[in-house]
Amino acid sequence: MKKLDFWYEFASTYSYLTAMRIGPLAKAAGVEVNWRPFLLGPIFKAQGMETSPFNLYPLKGSYMWRDLTRWSELLELPKFVQPSRFPQNTISASRIALALDDKARPDFTREVYVAEFTKDKDIGDAATLFEVLKKLGHDPEALIAKSVEQPIKDKLRANTEEAMKLGIFGAPDFVTEDGELFWGNDRLEQALAWAKKQAA
Amino acid sequence: MKKLDFWYEFASTYSYLTAMRIGPLAKAAGVEVNWRPFLLGPIFKAQGMETSPFNLYPLKGSYMWRDLTRWSELLELPKFVQPSRFPQNTISASRIALALDDKARPDFTREVYVAEFTKDKDIGDAATLFEVLKKLGHDPEALIAKSVEQPIKDKLRANTEEAMKLGIFGAPDFVTEDGELFWGNDRLEQALAWAKKQAA
Repeated sequence: MKKLDFWYEFASTYSYLTAMRIGPLAKAAGVEVNWRPFLLGPIFKAQGMETSPFNLYPLKGSYMWRDLTRWSELLELPKFVQPSRFPQNTISASRIALALDDKARPDFTREVYVAEFTKDKDIGDAATLFEVLKKLGHDPEALIAKSVEQPIKDKLRANTEEAMKLGIFGAPDFVTEDGELFWGNDRLEQALAWAKKQAA
Repeated sequence: MKKLDFWYEFASTYSYLTAMRIGPLAKAAGVEVNWRPFLLGPIFKAQGMETSPFNLYPLKGSYMWRDLTRWSELLELPKFVQPSRFPQNTISASRIALALDDKARPDFTREVYVAEFTKDKDIGDAATLFEVLKKLGHDPEALIAKSVEQPIKDKLRANTEEAMKLGIFGAPDFVTEDGELFWGNDRLEQALAWAKKQAA
């Protein structure tokens, strides 16, 4: 089965939309998804941006919140709630995602996004992540401890460096096995079609 | 029949894609399209940008050229050619578009985009616009003369000011009769569905 790398950042609103819809679409396309969290902060900094472009360009920001509300309705997701803080600190969530095995990562990722964008929870807060892990039947203490060990820290740093090398400048992104890069939730269908075509 | 305002800038690559595909899609949705050229320059300036974000953020720019090539293949458009100059001076093309009547504007717009993005023509050059008008069976001299008269100049300025008031920050955009704003070629389907839903 052909693989598609799904690059996402826990602070990214459009990554949230993709996380909620990629599962069934990839299954229908016969494509296996590799969930790869990374940090946008260093990537924005390298482009000369000290925060999200949605904060730097307020008109674009206002539009994005409205767009997310519309998308949430179209996808029949829980009501979208503009978070009190944006972007959030996502280091802990990203590390825990990498401390989990590949099969457990998608559910954890979706649950964190739901807390962040439909319940206005602070996902930088250990208590939020503890609750998510507990709800999913994991051992929160063990995973939170594992997530701050050096190999996991290194894994997140390596992911972010790899994203940078791929020319990634925002999130979400999709990279096919032959190295084609697609940016944005609205390119998910094109990325899956590309991966499927390569598979044929 | 319900109407949809299609806001476009002649320098905008994604506006080009929309111009090439909006016709049949709008017809199928039973929506009448109002083609509204405007200038992004003053809108970028108001956001603190002296040029296109695709120039300000080179990684985003490189990605965009690749994305346009892929889109052109998917839409079966002529081979996409990255223009030597970007963004181009679009004042003359925009004024001529407004000097033409509503029925003639779509064909002129598409022809200018084809010259710009598949033949590397300078659309800021009067000779390019003259050729396009001639090809379409218009009287180039009369239209070019009309396009620099005050009422047409005022119309373009008014369009740009209206775009700014609508919260437009990039192109293309779609605005429904009930005032819903959609940004980007990849929101065309959502915009048409919204307009259609309002019509029902």
